[in-house]
Amino acid sequence: MLDEEKITRAIVEEYLDSFLDHTSVEVGLAGAGPANLVAAKKLAEEGVKTIVYERKLNVGGGMWGGGMMFPRIVVQKEATRILDDFGINYYEYEDDYYVANSIESVGRLASEAVQAGAEIYNLVKVEDVLIREDDRISGLVLNWSAVDKAGLHVDPLAIKANVVIDGTGHDAEVCRIVEEKIPEADFNVLGEKPMWAEVGEKALMDTTREIYPGLIVSGMAANAVSAGPRMGPIFGGMLLSGEKAAEIAIEKL
Amino acid sequence: MLDEEKITRAIVEEYLDSFLDHTSVEVGLAGAGPANLVAAKKLAEEGVKTIVYERKLNVGGGMWGGGMMFPRIVVQKEATRILDDFGINYYEYEDDYYVANSIESVGRLASEAVQAGAEIYNLVKVEDVLIREDDRISGLVLNWSAVDKAGLHVDPLAIKANVVIDGTGHDAEVCRIVEEKIPEADFNVLGEKPMWAEVGEKALMDTTREIYPGLIVSGMAANAVSAGPRMGPIFGGMLLSGEKAAEIAIEKL
Amino acid sequence: MLDEEKITRAIVEEYLDSFLDHTSVEVGLAGAGPANLVAAKKLAEEGVKTIVYERKLNVGGGMWGGGMMFPRIVVQKEATRILDDFGINYYEYEDDYYVANSIESVGRLASEAVQAGAEIYNLVKVEDVLIREDDRISGLVLNWSAVDKAGLHVDPLAIKANVVIDGTGHDAEVCRIVEEKIPEADFNVLGEKPMWAEVGEKALMDTTREIYPGLIVSGMAANAVSAGPRMGPIFGGMLLSGEKAAEIAIEKL
Amino acid sequence: MLDEEKITRAIVEEYLDSFLDHTSVEVGLAGAGPANLVAAKKLAEEGVKTIVYERKLNVGGGMWGGGMMFPRIVVQKEATRILDDFGINYYEYEDDYYVANSIESVGRLASEAVQAGAEIYNLVKVEDVLIREDDRISGLVLNWSAVDKAGLHVDPLAIKANVVIDGTGHDAEVCRIVEEKIPEADFNVLGEKPMWAEVGEKALMDTTREIYPGLIVSGMAANAVSAGPRMGPIFGGMLLSGEKAAEIAIEKL
Amino acid sequence: MLDEEKITRAIVEEYLDSFLDHTSVEVGLAGAGPANLVAAKKLAEEGVKTIVYERKLNVGGGMWGGGMMFPRIVVQKEATRILDDFGINYYEYEDDYYVANSIESVGRLASEAVQAGAEIYNLVKVEDVLIREDDRISGLVLNWSAVDKAGLHVDPLAIKANVVIDGTGHDAEVCRIVEEKIPEADFNVLGEKPMWAEVGEKALMDTTREIYPGLIVSGMAANAVSAGPRMGPIFGGMLLSGEKAAEIAIEKL
Amino acid sequence: MLDEEKITRAIVEEYLDSFLDHTSVEVGLAGAGPANLVAAKKLAEEGVKTIVYERKLNVGGGMWGGGMMFPRIVVQKEATRILDDFGINYYEYEDDYYVANSIESVGRLASEAVQAGAEIYNLVKVEDVLIREDDRISGLVLNWSAVDKAGLHVDPLAIKANVVIDGTGHDAEVCRIVEEKIPEADFNVLGEKPMWAEVGEKALMDTTREIYPGLIVSGMAANAVSAGPRMGPIFGGMLLSGEKAAEIAIEKL
Amino acid sequence: MLDEEKITRAIVEEYLDSFLDHTSVEVGLAGAGPANLVAAKKLAEEGVKTIVYERKLNVGGGMWGGGMMFPRIVVQKEATRILDDFGINYYEYEDDYYVANSIESVGRLASEAVQAGAEIYNLVKVEDVLIREDDRISGLVLNWSAVDKAGLHVDPLAIKANVVIDGTGHDAEVCRIVEEKIPEADFNVLGEKPMWAEVGEKALMDTTREIYPGLIVSGMAANAVSAGPRMGPIFGGMLLSGEKAAEIAIEKL
Amino acid sequence: MLDEEKITRAIVEEYLDSFLDHTSVEVGLAGAGPANLVAAKKLAEEGVKTIVYERKLNVGGGMWGGGMMFPRIVVQKEATRILDDFGINYYEYEDDYYVANSIESVGRLASEAVQAGAEIYNLVKVEDVLIREDDRISGLVLNWSAVDKAGLHVDPLAIKANVVIDGTGHDAEVCRIVEEKIPEADFNVLGEKPMWAEVGEKALMDTTREIYPGLIVSGMAANAVSAGPRMGPIFGGMLLSGEKAAEIAIEKL
Repeated sequence: MLDEEKITRAIVEEYLDSFLDHTSVEVGLAGAGPANLVAAKKLAEEGVKTIVYERKLNVGGGMWGGGMMFPRIVVQKEATRILDDFGINYYEYEDDYYVANSIESVGRLASEAVQAGAEIYNLVKVEDVLIREDDRISGLVLNWSAVDKAGLHVDPLAIKANVVIDGTGHDAEVCRIVEEKIPEADFNVLGEKPMWAEVGEKALMDTTREIYPGLIVSGMAANAVSAGPRMGPIFGGMLLSGEKAAEIAIEKL
Repeated sequence: MLDEEKITRAIVEEYLDSFLDHTSVEVGLAGAGPANLVAAKKLAEEGVKTIVYERKLNVGGGMWGGGMMFPRIVVQKEATRILDDFGINYYEYEDDYYVANSIESVGRLASEAVQAGAEIYNLVKVEDVLIREDDRISGLVLNWSAVDKAGLHVDPLAIKANVVIDGTGHDAEVCRIVEEKIPEADFNVLGEKPMWAEVGEKALMDTTREIYPGLIVSGMAANAVSAGPRMGPIFGGMLLSGEKAAEIAIEKL
Repeated sequence: MLDEEKITRAIVEEYLDSFLDHTSVEVGLAGAGPANLVAAKKLAEEGVKTIVYERKLNVGGGMWGGGMMFPRIVVQKEATRILDDFGINYYEYEDDYYVANSIESVGRLASEAVQAGAEIYNLVKVEDVLIREDDRISGLVLNWSAVDKAGLHVDPLAIKANVVIDGTGHDAEVCRIVEEKIPEADFNVLGEKPMWAEVGEKALMDTTREIYPGLIVSGMAANAVSAGPRMGPIFGGMLLSGEKAAEIAIEKL
Repeated sequence: MLDEEKITRAIVEEYLDSFLDHTSVEVGLAGAGPANLVAAKKLAEEGVKTIVYERKLNVGGGMWGGGMMFPRIVVQKEATRILDDFGINYYEYEDDYYVANSIESVGRLASEAVQAGAEIYNLVKVEDVLIREDDRISGLVLNWSAVDKAGLHVDPLAIKANVVIDGTGHDAEVCRIVEEKIPEADFNVLGEKPMWAEVGEKALMDTTREIYPGLIVSGMAANAVSAGPRMGPIFGGMLLSGEKAAEIAIEKL
Repeated sequence: MLDEEKITRAIVEEYLDSFLDHTSVEVGLAGAGPANLVAAKKLAEEGVKTIVYERKLNVGGGMWGGGMMFPRIVVQKEATRILDDFGINYYEYEDDYYVANSIESVGRLASEAVQAGAEIYNLVKVEDVLIREDDRISGLVLNWSAVDKAGLHVDPLAIKANVVIDGTGHDAEVCRIVEEKIPEADFNVLGEKPMWAEVGEKALMDTTREIYPGLIVSGMAANAVSAGPRMGPIFGGMLLSGEKAAEIAIEKL
Repeated sequence: MLDEEKITRAIVEEYLDSFLDHTSVEVGLAGAGPANLVAAKKLAEEGVKTIVYERKLNVGGGMWGGGMMFPRIVVQKEATRILDDFGINYYEYEDDYYVANSIESVGRLASEAVQAGAEIYNLVKVEDVLIREDDRISGLVLNWSAVDKAGLHVDPLAIKANVVIDGTGHDAEVCRIVEEKIPEADFNVLGEKPMWAEVGEKALMDTTREIYPGLIVSGMAANAVSAGPRMGPIFGGMLLSGEKAAEIAIEKL
Repeated sequence: MLDEEKITRAIVEEYLDSFLDHTSVEVGLAGAGPANLVAAKKLAEEGVKTIVYERKLNVGGGMWGGGMMFPRIVVQKEATRILDDFGINYYEYEDDYYVANSIESVGRLASEAVQAGAEIYNLVKVEDVLIREDDRISGLVLNWSAVDKAGLHVDPLAIKANVVIDGTGHDAEVCRIVEEKIPEADFNVLGEKPMWAEVGEKALMDTTREIYPGLIVSGMAANAVSAGPRMGPIFGGMLLSGEKAAEIAIEKL
Repeated sequence: MLDEEKITRAIVEEYLDSFLDHTSVEVGLAGAGPANLVAAKKLAEEGVKTIVYERKLNVGGGMWGGGMMFPRIVVQKEATRILDDFGINYYEYEDDYYVANSIESVGRLASEAVQAGAEIYNLVKVEDVLIREDDRISGLVLNWSAVDKAGLHVDPLAIKANVVIDGTGHDAEVCRIVEEKIPEADFNVLGEKPMWAEVGEKALMDTTREIYPGLIVSGMAANAVSAGPRMGPIFGGMLLSGEKAAEIAIEKL
């Protein structure tokens, strides 16, 4: 006999066990777009305690809609090994241009990251960071994103994290908080440049970096911070940026 | 050298090839929630030409948020074989109560359906049905959901389908169109009843049925049409309903 | 040294303990207006396991604003003993007319109910009821009200309750759910009548009653269900209605 | 026999008497959050003529929602004496970490302040200040907050106050008015810093101060003006800030 | 020397004296459109204690905009004596068609009604009626209209009135309340008919009547209740309807 | 027999005649608040061709609501002669403080201005100015304010005016256009200062002035441009400012 | 030398001449979609005094967006002669299927109707009808549509028309007014049926008819009134419906 | 027999062919207002591969509404040859002032541009530009405007263009993107000046120019960029600006 009380208890106990298990993590990621999902899988595979916060109900960021609502994405050759790693199918359109289904891609990115051991909390917004006297980001300040959307005035909670990765896309939300609130931070969120796919994809390898002690930036947020060109619906650079962000994070731990 | 024009052409050509390949299908599904994703996978595995239309940017319906924004779902024993089939992990909470990660679950449901061969178009809304003189639903009338959200006045396009499955959740959107526009349809969308998980889960096996020639109803839409109780964040019945809807559809082809 | 992680853990653990302690209660109250706060205090004082759900961030319902935003309320003589019981000050305006400060009154109603042992969860909306084969309300279906305000599609959770008290004011929200979803319920929410303070206050003693097995109605919801007149900013009847609802609930346990 | 006319007269006469009695006060407080409610109680207990204006319908500010909608707050040891003074219960979670019920806490803060003799007007917004030739804030300019929310164009009224306390939280509303309109004011509202509970709590003892002749700032407004770190759902500093603001005000009278 | 405190006291004292002087009136009018302003002037001139409630910030109803935003109105010959009485200028356009300035007209209607001794409260909404055992409307239930526009939940106050005149235009707001809440009321608000100026103007002399004990209806509300045709920007009938409503009211006192 | 076509023609012909008669005026006033209505009456009485544009449906600006929605205003002794001139009643509250009814006052200000010969167009917004090579404002650019409120993209029309008076209140709309678009204009709209009735009232006599060739500023717009203090619901200075603006305009013609 | 005053006068004089020339017409059309533009051209070519009112800023109705925002429409063979008549290019896609550019098509439909002598007023909404004792629609009641969109309360004006054609699309706005306000009208607006292009196109020849004395219905409004199927982005029936509506109108004159 | 599937295929295939045919063009125009429609016709007539993107559903920009919603425009003598070229009728109002119907004018501008061979895509927004190492605009980044209006997060696509013409009106959208994102661009969008028809019309001949390699600006966007005066509803300059922009573009190819 199914019992609603037990269903309630099962969900609440599992969640709060998970929550209490993640009040202190090694890497906390803001945003569950393609770059951070790649990063999360890699980190979890390396045994790093990893959690991703996403303010929307769903994960996957801007990948769902393909280009102009046509649900296909393009990936260049050098990044197809990441598609392979996630079990995403793709078709060759022309030399170096591979097309994948955007919905399948998001599905695999999300499920593989979780199965590798990363925790993902959706509907949670990173609204600030924790700081300490060593001028280092030392954690994240969280709230339900519904609190904000509903216009409520409710205090946040905080967790500790050794390293934070900002993969919140064009808005570079965590970087903007640090830029605005910590005057000694020596970077500015410059905003992305006009589109130039070739240069934008390559720039990501340089713009994916630690920009403040404890804060790494990945994906479009990386190009937005460092004024790299935007690329449109080609995602190879995004996936590789996630991989690189994970590598930098592991180094910093 | 990456070239934006080629990226554009790759996406548009792939999409429009797909679009033209799906102007006539065997089964057209409205809504990409859990039930219809299970149905789509099964249909595609059986070699049925299958397409799913989802009006949101993402698929997965109400499963993302778990229960009360705690991202976990419960599945009872009899449905764990579907989780196995999709490669979704789960943990035993207590006899007959299994807990899964809601984000991983949606990811797998979506990616497996696509990999089995079903096409999914997100951001497309089913706004009406096609009829013919044999009083049978013979296709779907489609529009970009953004047209509606943006308050634009733009005509739809239509595709043919031998069978239609309405898996649009509580709103039972296709059923309501048929109820309102075809007086000879002998059903009413009664709305779901108060919560009673045990009865609601079982009811789904009966309420998942062909309610008008060419129109099958699945998932919460099935209970909504037939006044079954609602169940909350237990998803076994939903998954089994999708499976059954696919079986009925295959029979009707 | 204050530590944010510990602050987080203290709040989450206390809440989790409380939540799991209240997945099954003796009396579940919907709405934390004056009537239900009086009922909750009385129930808790009698040792009844009691929880109140309020969808707003604050409790107190329509009492905060006094009459036309002038923050004073009127209470007639027979109800001043309840003010005394809650430690609320009042001043005699004229025979049988006592004036109290609306803000002080809400403050005391809320704090005394909690101190008596009732749990109150704000920001939680009762969105449905649980039913069983004996045609009896057997619990409440809950969701964060922010989910609704933010337009999200997230499943609810449910708790069991032997008795439910609907004190949601003019809207009589739980009663409306029962009226709409359970055809065999033999009442209709008739709506309150034009103002007539004398009759409205007295009517509350009759309209506060069990209107469906397991469902008691209190405060303005009682008059709204039974077409009693409205009363304006006189609150004696509301307070006495809460007291009576508690007495009926205790009888039914 | 209850008579609606008498109810109306009772409320309006009491309000009118109170309003006319408070067109000139010793201390006028903007905002009825935790800090200002503590300040108001202390001032009233010292016999100071005190009025608090709150633009929302309810008082209590951001305390209602605890942390992330879990209705519990944390208070450190040194501030538990204020909880005792207000009759608020609390439980020891761990050394120096005490947990209280957020709803009970607001209820007591509000009712005790009123019972001590402070007047509180809700739904009234401080929209400007009065100035005189001695470059001193000498009163407050008031309007119904509903006027603003309804988009109406209606003139305000003004009252005199020897001292003003701005306890309007993060927005520091009165301070911003002074900053913008009085160029000779030598402060800027700097905004609060990232979270650091330990430092933020201590900073409040310094940031709670007279920042312009006749204008004291309390609670989160104090840290917001002076760029102190934010603290999250720990409230000891807030309560102590209210106490200190009252002491400074008494000194200035 | 001007003193803000005295300005505040002057306004509040005058207003609250007026308010307390009008908690019981002979005639209470809902809506300050042209018909009710004519009625109010006539009633006041006859020494009747009269108050008009208007929910907008301004009075004059639909007369300000003339026809299609061209600020002119037309009045037929038989009603020019009312224009004369109010001191409104007009010009002959053709036999029986006189044109007046819509802005001047509203100005005069309002100022003359007040100068005759009628009180007008703007920004106050009639949200219900008072009833007594003799099945007679015996007063009005009032609230600030800003409360409603701002979405606040605040109780109303009530005043007594021997006779009520509903001049709220097409919506016939008071009539609709009576129709909905008092089943024994034997009228329905039928809504106005298509435009036919000739018939509509004449119909007003019949439709202006007491439709429920204590409730008279005037102006467009009269035609809306009794399904008279609408007339457009010709105002003679409106003015005469106000005059007639006043005569009926005097008779009933 | 009333004929709708004739009603239409009467209104449109009268309006057309008026419109074409005012494509070139001596003084064009933006805003129909108290100051500009006084100015318009005085100008018209002196035989000056005068038109007032008001973007709202009604005229009277912020005077309707008195202070805090209590419909009374205060006027000091020196301005009562203007009340007398307009036929507005007032009552002595105390030496030098006279109270008038805000609704009667607006009614008289509007009707007397029209009867003196000034044209007033409501629902028309001044969206820009005309300039010529002599660096002088030489006219006004007009549009229906409904065009803006409805979010339409429609071109304006323009009229010529020898002198323009900006009486648009706190926003000083015409002055802001000139400030932003004409760099050689040597003033800035500084915004009004905190409230100080005594100083604010007196400042108006200085701040009412020609601030750019052909542009005079009156009423609260005058204090807003020149950083004078605000005054609250005392209107003597406003009325006198209107009178002075008219005098300056006549001088400039 | 260009002079703004002359530009203003040119536009206002031409418009108001036109307006006064059209206060009484032979045929008044509501809605400027494809059907009514065809009707207007034909009527004007026959020398009938014709005016079209369109509430949007642009004309062309739902034709602009083609199908699903792909700006192409389809026309069947029998209607290509109307395309020829309007000078619209088209291409054969397949037997009996001709494709035209949707933007070019609207442009020609509009410009040819005007050049044939029909007047079109955009931004004007038909908000009611005129009636007379012979139970016949005898004119249209008009208002600026911006009045409605801006939420203003402004009276309409009316014009006379011997015959009215409702071509307002799915909403059948004029028909709904007649259905609701004239009980003796013996039709109901049934709403369009599911899509069936073949039947829908043919149905239009029957559903385009006089449904009430003086009221003809055309285009999608015709199918909406008579429950014909909808057709999607095929426009032949629409064009032929406009032609037929004109023929019926001419017959009735 | 009409077949919906064929209608769908006809539209999608034609669109796809057109889309793929325009992934690389000679001139890409942003905005389909009067200036760009003139430019598009001229370019197409010269055999230049031309496409126009318009984010609204309709084309024609601000011309539809004439002046103040009176649907007439004025054109001076020197530009009447362009009216002649497009087949637009006009009437002489006075020497050098010609009046045309605004609806007919838009219709002709649109249809003639398409018939000359220019492609126009409505509902498509230019949201960025393509750049290359030679610091030259080399294409446009496109998205459905409904994506933006619906608040969706969907990636754009891009096309190549040798020359781009920004004719997006007052907002000068493409110019603002270049100004903000390319620091080396040596222009600023200054905004248009107050109205002065004579000077504004003439200025357009100078302000219509290439302001950045590959980017020409036309129509009101040209005056907005270069701080030319605005002109109101006189359109000669706009039409001539379009012609000039086309000439500059041809020169640059």
